[in-house]
Amino acid sequence: MSTRLTFLGAAGFEIAGPTHRILVDPFLTGNPAAPVEPDEIETPDVILVTHAAFDHIGDTAAIARRTGAPVVCGGDVRILLMDQGVPGNQIQATVWGILVEVAGLVVRPVECHHWSMSQLSSGETISGTPLAFIVETEPGVRVYHYGDSSIFDMRLIGELYEPTVAILGCTQPREILHLVPGPGKILTGELSPDEAARVAEMLGVRVAVACHYLEPNEDVDEFLELVPKYDTTGGRRAVAPAVGETITIDGG
Amino acid sequence: MSTRLTFLGAAGFEIAGPTHRILVDPFLTGNPAAPVEPDEIETPDVILVTHAAFDHIGDTAAIARRTGAPVVCGGDVRILLMDQGVPGNQIQATVWGILVEVAGLVVRPVECHHWSMSQLSSGETISGTPLAFIVETEPGVRVYHYGDSSIFDMRLIGELYEPTVAILGCTQPREILHLVPGPGKILTGELSPDEAARVAEMLGVRVAVACHYLEPNEDVDEFLELVPKYDTTGGRRAVAPAVGETITIDGG
Amino acid sequence: MSTRLTFLGAAGFEIAGPTHRILVDPFLTGNPAAPVEPDEIETPDVILVTHAAFDHIGDTAAIARRTGAPVVCGGDVRILLMDQGVPGNQIQATVWGILVEVAGLVVRPVECHHWSMSQLSSGETISGTPLAFIVETEPGVRVYHYGDSSIFDMRLIGELYEPTVAILGCTQPREILHLVPGPGKILTGELSPDEAARVAEMLGVRVAVACHYLEPNEDVDEFLELVPKYDTTGGRRAVAPAVGETITIDGG
Repeated sequence: MSTRLTFLGAAGFEIAGPTHRILVDPFLTGNPAAPVEPDEIETPDVILVTHAAFDHIGDTAAIARRTGAPVVCGGDVRILLMDQGVPGNQIQATVWGILVEVAGLVVRPVECHHWSMSQLSSGETISGTPLAFIVETEPGVRVYHYGDSSIFDMRLIGELYEPTVAILGCTQPREILHLVPGPGKILTGELSPDEAARVAEMLGVRVAVACHYLEPNEDVDEFLELVPKYDTTGGRRAVAPAVGETITIDGG
Repeated sequence: MSTRLTFLGAAGFEIAGPTHRILVDPFLTGNPAAPVEPDEIETPDVILVTHAAFDHIGDTAAIARRTGAPVVCGGDVRILLMDQGVPGNQIQATVWGILVEVAGLVVRPVECHHWSMSQLSSGETISGTPLAFIVETEPGVRVYHYGDSSIFDMRLIGELYEPTVAILGCTQPREILHLVPGPGKILTGELSPDEAARVAEMLGVRVAVACHYLEPNEDVDEFLELVPKYDTTGGRRAVAPAVGETITIDGG
Repeated sequence: MSTRLTFLGAAGFEIAGPTHRILVDPFLTGNPAAPVEPDEIETPDVILVTHAAFDHIGDTAAIARRTGAPVVCGGDVRILLMDQGVPGNQIQATVWGILVEVAGLVVRPVECHHWSMSQLSSGETISGTPLAFIVETEPGVRVYHYGDSSIFDMRLIGELYEPTVAILGCTQPREILHLVPGPGKILTGELSPDEAARVAEMLGVRVAVACHYLEPNEDVDEFLELVPKYDTTGGRRAVAPAVGETITIDGG
């Protein structure tokens, strides 16, 4: 058995294991590298949304409305999706620690040190708790998605839940950074390449998958170089998929 | 001297020491196991509210209005309670680290990794910072209430503030979970039995008190079994009170 | 070369290095100890705001409007400043981990365990993510500003970013505490003197600068005494500036 991770750009992935198709942070409209249209996305068993940023929540509402797929997210994202026309009974809000089972899949939300803020159609600003996720797609394949977390001591997450694959940002999707208003130049993602490589070691994963880009850049190269530097297991694989590429993870 | 902890269901406790009667997260209306009516609650010296979830803030507004008891809580809960008719000068907002003295009792809010979100009567959504609390009810009895925190490395809290009793969730109040909307099945509380038992060890407490249930279930049994497994002190007591039951903690 | 830190009261500092003048949390109006008027503040290259509390955001809007200086802050503070008339393109929102370069200065926001909540002119309540900051003012001088964080294990921040100077609260600006509504007596700042001294050690700084007061008090004295107690480097300097005083940090 195996699990296939297809990179959609930014932090978007379709994770297809033997039993479930999981869509995470599907950002396609407004993503110049999007490999598919939102309408072409195959019906997922569940959609996971880590937080309300536009390049993460992305096309979730449209895909959820079209496919009827259940969504798991934080409480603020639930309100935002309802504001975008997704029925409330299709959306499960959860928070760090509360495991939920949706469509037969157990979803584990874990700590994510970031923010989640958005504006409703009324103009009201809401904020909530960002999520990282761990899902076991098949025995021995536990995929961690970082949800734009910055670095913190994740060794406890590694020890308790033993993820085997980590999806980790290590840069920014530079092609869309002009959409972020303000006078500054954004230099890094929430994790630098060095921090992301350290996180892979804290989590103790077998495979570290780079993300948070549309086109691989020198940050991504640096991540690929640094993952082995912090690897005390001797067997960690680092991968940086092109947008649209599928990575296959062999099961146990 | 001794301190009496009376379990009200969910995360609600009345903590009565030699000098103060402290009410925490009094959820009675809508709690099918509630041992008392909100109107029967004896006037507390202070009410502590950990966060805005309905099964935590519960009947705080009604009890505060009836008794005039001061409330200590986060900033968002203060706004919500004022919206529910509690005078602002009766409510002290605080946050992690800022000790406040109310009615002669020193209240220590500590980190709680959870969320706090609610809706005002205007329909506006507000969110804030959830709190855990430590109160010293008598010399040598320092009671920690977890406030629905998920697991994180709490050894620093244990080392710095040396709680002796920890009130820890290890499951969900299943009888009321149908009130949580959404398509998923909620499998665990913010802390699993295993995580709660680990937290008791991180904190180094003498007594670990289970909560976040209305009727003890197999999660609670598991917590009672696991507390000794992680106990490096050899003397940790694990207790799972029935709703309405009082646990007595002997002072120093 | 050297870097000059001028204390403005509460957590306000002007940090002037060889190349940049940085204003942090400029609280002057309503600050009875303010050494200057907001109109007298020299045009900074950048203003950093840690969170929305009135004694931190302070006069940021007026100073930003008058001088046109760019502001770096969290997303909620950006909305609040725009509500106060600062143009959106003058304000860069960021979050933990995302380095931004503004006016040629690299600003590193790091984790801050606190809250950030405010009310817009419409009456709407917003909340967001508080920030601590590290800025390198010259080679070998990396100044950490705590942003009202409570204690947590900051050793990772020390290891990764090697700050050399830490600006740390250790008390409260008592002269203005009467402005905080509620029935309680506020006993400590977000960091007690003991906690602040421990944080200096976790960060491994050469210089620990006390703040979060208008007039030094016995908490500040205690901080000065305790810094050496936790110092494993043998060379840590503890300073408690008077409001208006300038501390000079020698470069490498």
